[in-house]
Amino acid sequence: MSEVSAAETVAEAGEGPKPVRIGLLGRGTVGAAFADLLAERADAVEAATGRRPELAGVLTRGEGDFDEILGRSDLVVELMGGTEPAREYAIAAMRAGRPFVTANKQLLAQHGDELFGVARESRVQLRFEAAVAAVIPIVRTIQEGFAATEIDKVYGIVNGTTNFILSEMASTGAGYEETLAQAQELGYAEADPTDDVSGADAAAKMAILARLAFHTPVTLSEVSYEGIEAIRPDDLAFAKELGLSLKLLGVAERRGATLSVRVFPCFLYSGHPLAPIEGAFNAVMIQAPAINEVTLSGPGAGGLQTASAVLGDVVSILAGDAPVHETRVELPIVADVPSSFYLHLEVADRPGVLARIATVLGEHDVSVKSVVQHGIGDDARLVMVLHECLESRFALAVEALNQLGEMRGPARSIHVIEEQF
Amino acid sequence: MSEVSAAETVAEAGEGPKPVRIGLLGRGTVGAAFADLLAERADAVEAATGRRPELAGVLTRGEGDFDEILGRSDLVVELMGGTEPAREYAIAAMRAGRPFVTANKQLLAQHGDELFGVARESRVQLRFEAAVAAVIPIVRTIQEGFAATEIDKVYGIVNGTTNFILSEMASTGAGYEETLAQAQELGYAEADPTDDVSGADAAAKMAILARLAFHTPVTLSEVSYEGIEAIRPDDLAFAKELGLSLKLLGVAERRGATLSVRVFPCFLYSGHPLAPIEGAFNAVMIQAPAINEVTLSGPGAGGLQTASAVLGDVVSILAGDAPVHETRVELPIVADVPSSFYLHLEVADRPGVLARIATVLGEHDVSVKSVVQHGIGDDARLVMVLHECLESRFALAVEALNQLGEMRGPARSIHVIEEQF
Repeated sequence: MSEVSAAETVAEAGEGPKPVRIGLLGRGTVGAAFADLLAERADAVEAATGRRPELAGVLTRGEGDFDEILGRSDLVVELMGGTEPAREYAIAAMRAGRPFVTANKQLLAQHGDELFGVARESRVQLRFEAAVAAVIPIVRTIQEGFAATEIDKVYGIVNGTTNFILSEMASTGAGYEETLAQAQELGYAEADPTDDVSGADAAAKMAILARLAFHTPVTLSEVSYEGIEAIRPDDLAFAKELGLSLKLLGVAERRGATLSVRVFPCFLYSGHPLAPIEGAFNAVMIQAPAINEVTLSGPGAGGLQTASAVLGDVVSILAGDAPVHETRVELPIVADVPSSFYLHLEVADRPGVLARIATVLGEHDVSVKSVVQHGIGDDARLVMVLHECLESRFALAVEALNQLGEMRGPARSIHVIEEQF
Repeated sequence: MSEVSAAETVAEAGEGPKPVRIGLLGRGTVGAAFADLLAERADAVEAATGRRPELAGVLTRGEGDFDEILGRSDLVVELMGGTEPAREYAIAAMRAGRPFVTANKQLLAQHGDELFGVARESRVQLRFEAAVAAVIPIVRTIQEGFAATEIDKVYGIVNGTTNFILSEMASTGAGYEETLAQAQELGYAEADPTDDVSGADAAAKMAILARLAFHTPVTLSEVSYEGIEAIRPDDLAFAKELGLSLKLLGVAERRGATLSVRVFPCFLYSGHPLAPIEGAFNAVMIQAPAINEVTLSGPGAGGLQTASAVLGDVVSILAGDAPVHETRVELPIVADVPSSFYLHLEVADRPGVLARIATVLGEHDVSVKSVVQHGIGDDARLVMVLHECLESRFALAVEALNQLGEMRGPARSIHVIEEQF
C-alpha cells in the first residue's frame, strides 16, 4: 500500500485515518454505476480495508480537468473507454504514483507492454479485473492464485452478445440476422454490433488473458479471430443431432514452445463444462497439470456487474497485504427456513387417495407444484414437487401424512431448488 | 509483506534477495505433493514474487521438532490435518510473526475465531484457500474480489465423494451401498466414509465460507447437516422424470437479519448451473445483487490440486501487494494449429459421392469421426465431424472438395472440441 500511503501526504489533516480520494475518469453506464456503488458500499470498503473511499472528482467529456482531478486523488479509476486519452491519463496517473484501476480492454490489449512497464517503474498497482469478464474473477485467479502454475490453456466464452445470439439461434431455429435484431432490441447487442459479432471484442480479452497466463507480450494484432456472422441455422440443427452446441470460443494455449491465441466459433459436446453456458453469460476455463481444470462463470457484462469488479480492484489496492478475516456483522444463525421439497409417497391405490393427501397438505398450507402417479394397486406411488414453505410446517404435514391409513410406508422427502434457470 | 521481511533478519546473509524458508508440518499425500511442487516451481515462484522458496524443514509424526523448524522458517505451511496439535502450532507460528498457510478445514471450522484473532493481533497473514475446495479459488474470490459486496447466498457442491456417488447412482441405477463400495475401490471414498457421506465434511467447509461471506463468527456446531445415506435409487429415477438431478448442497444464505447455514441433499432442475457438475468435481455459486451470480467449479480435492492451492497462498504472501504483470517467457505466437472440424457439404445424391469425398479427405490425411447423411436427390447433405488435423491441411482438403462436381455449394466448416467430458 505504499502508493496510497504516499499520496496521503496530500490529504487534509483530520480525525481517524484519512479517506482515500478516488478520481473517476468517465461517467457513462459503468462510470455512473461505479459512483453509486462506491457511495453505497463506502462503509463496507472501510470495514474491509480500514480506509473510507470518497470521490475526489469526475472527469467527463464536458466537465472537469484531468490534472486538477489527479492532484486531488489518491487512486484513479478509468471508465471512459477508448484508447486515447485513456492511455495518456493512465501513464500520467501512474507516473504521479497513483494506483490505477481500469475496465478498458482495448487499452490493455493494445498498449499492455507500455502500461505494465510504467506501473513497474512507478511501483504502483495497475488492476483491471473488469476489463475481461466483469465480475468473473479470472484476472485475479490467473495472476494471483495460479501465478506459479504452469498453465497449458485458458479458453472460454468471453463475449456475452454472441453467446446470447448463438443460444437463441439454437433454441428458436431463427437465422442470424433476425436473432441479432432481437438481441439489439433486448439490449444484448449494440446498434453497431461489429466489435462483438466479428470476434474482435473477444480477441482483445484473449490478448489480455494470454499475456497473464503465459507471461508473454501478446497484443491484439497477434490474435486471429473469426466471428459468428456466417453461422447458419441448419448448422445448429444438424449439429444438435451429433450432440453438439455452438459457442464463440477464445482460446489461448501453449503448444510446445509456442503460443496460439485465437477466437472462433466452435462446437462442444454436451458434457463439456462450457456447453451449458447459455445466454449473455461468460465462462472461462484454466487447464494445467497441477490443477486439472477450473471453470469460472457468470455475467460477463452489465453496468453494475462491471462496476462491482472495479470496486473489488479498489478494495484490493486499499487492503494491500491480503486481509485477515475479521467478523463485523453478527447475524444470528437461524434453523427453520422456507424450502421446496420433493415428496415420495407409497400409497394404496384406492379411490380418493390423492384427494386425502392433498387435503392434508392444504391443511398445512403446503401447495403442490407438480405430481406424477406411478404404478397401480399395491405398488402405487405419488411423486410430487411442492412449493416453498417453512420447513417446520412441511415437517408437520409429513407427520400428518404418515398417519393416513393409505400410506404403505413413511413419506420420503428431499429438498428441491425451485428456481428454473 | 512486513511479516516475511521481519523474518528475514533470521536469514543468513548472501547474494541477492534471501530465499524464503518454508517450514512444512505434515508429509502425507498433500504434504508430499506440496514439497515436490515447491521444488519444481521454485523458479516460477521467484519470477512471480522476487523471492525464492526453499524447504526449511518438515515435521512428521516421527521426525522433526516444531520449535526448531519454526526457528528456521519465514513462513509455515500446515498440512498435517486434525485440530491438535495443528491449532497449537498455528498459534505459536503466528505469534512468532510467521505467516501461516493451511489446508485444514476442521481447524478453521472449529477454531476460526481464535485463529483469526491471533492473526490480527500478530499482524500476519493466515491463508487457507485449499481448506474449502482445493484449487477452486473460492476463498480468494469471496475475501478479496467481493470483500465490499453484500452477498446474499453462497452455495454449492463442496464434497466430491458424495457428488461422485450421487452421479453414479443416477447414471447406473445402482443402490447407495453398492455405489459407495465402488467409490471406495476407485479411491473416491475413504475406508471410513462417514465424514463425507454424513455431510460433516461439507458442513465444515460451509462454516468457513459462511464466516467469510457474511463476516459472522460461524462455527461447525452451528451448521446443521444431513448426508446422502438415505437416498434410494428410485428417488433418483422418479426425479429424472421431473427433470431433476440430485446434489449434496451446502447453503449459506442471508435471510433478513439472520443467517442460515446448512448441508442437505437437494434436487436441481436441469438448467441450474450446478446441475451439470458431475463426478468428484466441486462447484460454488455466489449470489449478490451487484454481481448477479458467479460460479466457480473444478476438482475439489486431490493431493496435487490441494498442494497447488497451498502454493498459490504462499505466492500471495510473498507477492505482498498485488503483482504488476511482467512478461518473462517469450513464447512465439503460432497461427497454424491442429483442430477438429464439423464439415457440412451440400452434395448431389449420386452413387459413390461419399466415397469420392472420403477419398479427397483421405488424400489430405483428414479422417472422419462421425458422419450423418440427410435428404436425398438435390437436397442431400453430408454432415461430419472430423478428427484433429493441422488447420492448413484441413483448408487444402476443403479446397479440393469444393472442386468436386458433386458439390452443390461451398463446404461449410466449424471448429469442434473433440474431447468428450
